[in-house]
Amino acid sequence: MNEHKEIIIGMFGFGVVGEGLYKILQQTPSLNARIKKSCIKHPGKKRNAPEELFTTDKDVLLFDDEINVIVEVIDDSVAAFDIVTTALKNGKAVVSASKKMIAENLEELLQLQKETGLPFLCEAAACASIPVIRNLEEYYDNDLLHSIRAVVNGSTNFILTKMFDDKLDFQDALILAQQLGYAESNPSLDVEGYDAVNKWVILLNHAYGIVEKSDKILFTGIQNIQLRDASVAKEKGFDIKLVAQAKTLLNGKVAAYVLPQFVKLDDQLAFVKNEFNGVVIESGFADRQFFYGKGAGSLATGSAVMSDISALRYDYKYEYKKLYHHKPKELTNDFYVRVYISFNEVKSIRKDDFEWIEEWHAGLERSYLIGVIHFQKLQNTNWWKEDGVSLILTADGIIEEIDSRNAKKRSLELAGIL
Amino acid sequence: MNEHKEIIIGMFGFGVVGEGLYKILQQTPSLNARIKKSCIKHPGKKRNAPEELFTTDKDVLLFDDEINVIVEVIDDSVAAFDIVTTALKNGKAVVSASKKMIAENLEELLQLQKETGLPFLCEAAACASIPVIRNLEEYYDNDLLHSIRAVVNGSTNFILTKMFDDKLDFQDALILAQQLGYAESNPSLDVEGYDAVNKWVILLNHAYGIVEKSDKILFTGIQNIQLRDASVAKEKGFDIKLVAQAKTLLNGKVAAYVLPQFVKLDDQLAFVKNEFNGVVIESGFADRQFFYGKGAGSLATGSAVMSDISALRYDYKYEYKKLYHHKPKELTNDFYVRVYISFNEVKSIRKDDFEWIEEWHAGLERSYLIGVIHFQKLQNTNWWKEDGVSLILTADGIIEEIDSRNAKKRSLELAGIL
Repeated sequence: MNEHKEIIIGMFGFGVVGEGLYKILQQTPSLNARIKKSCIKHPGKKRNAPEELFTTDKDVLLFDDEINVIVEVIDDSVAAFDIVTTALKNGKAVVSASKKMIAENLEELLQLQKETGLPFLCEAAACASIPVIRNLEEYYDNDLLHSIRAVVNGSTNFILTKMFDDKLDFQDALILAQQLGYAESNPSLDVEGYDAVNKWVILLNHAYGIVEKSDKILFTGIQNIQLRDASVAKEKGFDIKLVAQAKTLLNGKVAAYVLPQFVKLDDQLAFVKNEFNGVVIESGFADRQFFYGKGAGSLATGSAVMSDISALRYDYKYEYKKLYHHKPKELTNDFYVRVYISFNEVKSIRKDDFEWIEEWHAGLERSYLIGVIHFQKLQNTNWWKEDGVSLILTADGIIEEIDSRNAKKRSLELAGIL
Repeated sequence: MNEHKEIIIGMFGFGVVGEGLYKILQQTPSLNARIKKSCIKHPGKKRNAPEELFTTDKDVLLFDDEINVIVEVIDDSVAAFDIVTTALKNGKAVVSASKKMIAENLEELLQLQKETGLPFLCEAAACASIPVIRNLEEYYDNDLLHSIRAVVNGSTNFILTKMFDDKLDFQDALILAQQLGYAESNPSLDVEGYDAVNKWVILLNHAYGIVEKSDKILFTGIQNIQLRDASVAKEKGFDIKLVAQAKTLLNGKVAAYVLPQFVKLDDQLAFVKNEFNGVVIESGFADRQFFYGKGAGSLATGSAVMSDISALRYDYKYEYKKLYHHKPKELTNDFYVRVYISFNEVKSIRKDDFEWIEEWHAGLERSYLIGVIHFQKLQNTNWWKEDGVSLILTADGIIEEIDSRNAKKRSLELAGIL
């Protein structure tokens, strides 16, 4: 049962993930895979591997006929794209962990896979150790996928957990995350939602066949969430998570975003604490499934890369069934959302943007409202992302249709109250 | 990207799972798979499919050269084994959902796969919609697997949930489970743990390369659990689950069993309520992962069978790496467990079997003790399974080594108390 070909790897990058993978491969000779060369940027650095493993010349890897798999775990998305495209054009299978590079170049990468017929695997690029891409490819195959909701960023989830469970304020929680290695020294990629939306672009593709740039998907991070918001959530029986969601609407189109959201305490996502990730998939046949695990870290990421290498032994590649064998789903912004918005000053709020406002709480320290707003209005404006304003989707979130008479009635009522 | 061969299926059985699969395949033409014939037992029954689909002659399927995949979803484990072996010998790939048949004939099935080189896939046989077998095969590949703990039986989990959350007693909870279709009219296979241990035999094989009969694995069900046990659990801050566990001990051997166990309320398994299943995998590289979903039902099972069919398009088969490429792990009974045992009459309890007893609670209604016992003693005796005696593993469960002086001291102390 061991008829698989030998995997001979050219690896770009030897940072925490690359070194993790190197270790894993050394401990698993049965995989029949070895790293022949690793291309690095700074040759002077001390590394835990023999010197002859390394080169700074990318062509040594990309034009070596013996190397049949290029593994790319570097930080520079422009260089990564160049490496990946050259590798595919040179007839090599590719394993990549660069979510930013993939999200930015999704269309080109799909085209190249089509042209070359070669595998491009990227399990490590979304939720690391959780095998979500392969499961979306294989298990919801032609299933009726109702929705996918996920916590895809460990840094922000760690910070929210500390705010929620230990009542740390945002800054203290962020510093703790940095001390423990769960957040970068420049944390804005994580904290402001860029990392999460890049992963979401990739998962939307495998889940629904959607090919879209990240700037077309509404997102924000947790940078404006206040400790006071966590208290309100607790009083109301909710937790707060940075939730990436995609949901099939009644009209067949897909609503998708990455936003902070209240989640019920018995929701699977409330179970995802600290630096962990979690994915809830609801579908017609398999019903509700929940995957939970580490979304980052050298070994968790290394193990995801290794699983891709393992799959390459039997020439596995993504089929992108939702994209090529079905009519791919379309994104829509034509729906409503119920949101909680807290603020320091009333003038930050554009009340007229709302269909109606259901709750208005004014306090000396901080105030908040709960109201229903058209999703496109959030897309078109930025006031809700400004300093001091914190938007959190309510647990019921998406409202597909509203009764406009009802809206007017509620607005009128409101006029009497406010 | 659609170069896959056509899958032409001969299906044995057209019960809830078979019909579920038939529906799923009709709705998914992109799979390029069709059921050519279905072999049934009772031709008279009304079925939601054209009459010409059916035959009662198994050879019509097994000797049809066009049929390249046999799907077997019948209830009779003897007939199923006959079908599966004939199919493999006739050069056909097999997809099976019969956990009992697989557990009973594991060695022969492995041998046949080796001889024929053909795929035998059975994702539906353990935890249905949760892709646990494929993930154990692919993702913990050569990982250091520390432990796997799971709720693998939906019926018993539903009953325990109702006892725990709604304070129903065992009989009432069982009747409710039967009314809702979560338990069979003859529930003993589920309730007494037979179904769970069969699944565990299969998962031990894919997780650790262990090939063992179910009667070599200590198991019991929930038939003796009392409402009073649930109250004790609650007082102490625990839930009760029927837990299937396998754990790598320090000596490299594996401890495995299926037993009721107290689980902490923040344990992933406590999250698994009602008819759902859940699997927690702890490993060196990927850390802790948790999979959750429906473990039974026609569509959940059908979707697992479909995922196997889908995998057959690129000739996927299990490699049984832990068995063939590594030294497979050995089971051991040489360890201790801390157990809670409740009872009506003191004479039911063999106190001398314990290393020591830590707690002794005598009550008018019911009494219980907590003590440490060698695992082999549980294997060798049956008193703890008798009517009126209920054994529940404590949350810390396995104790690899005890200090015998300490044990004696504790016993002496106890002698003074009791």
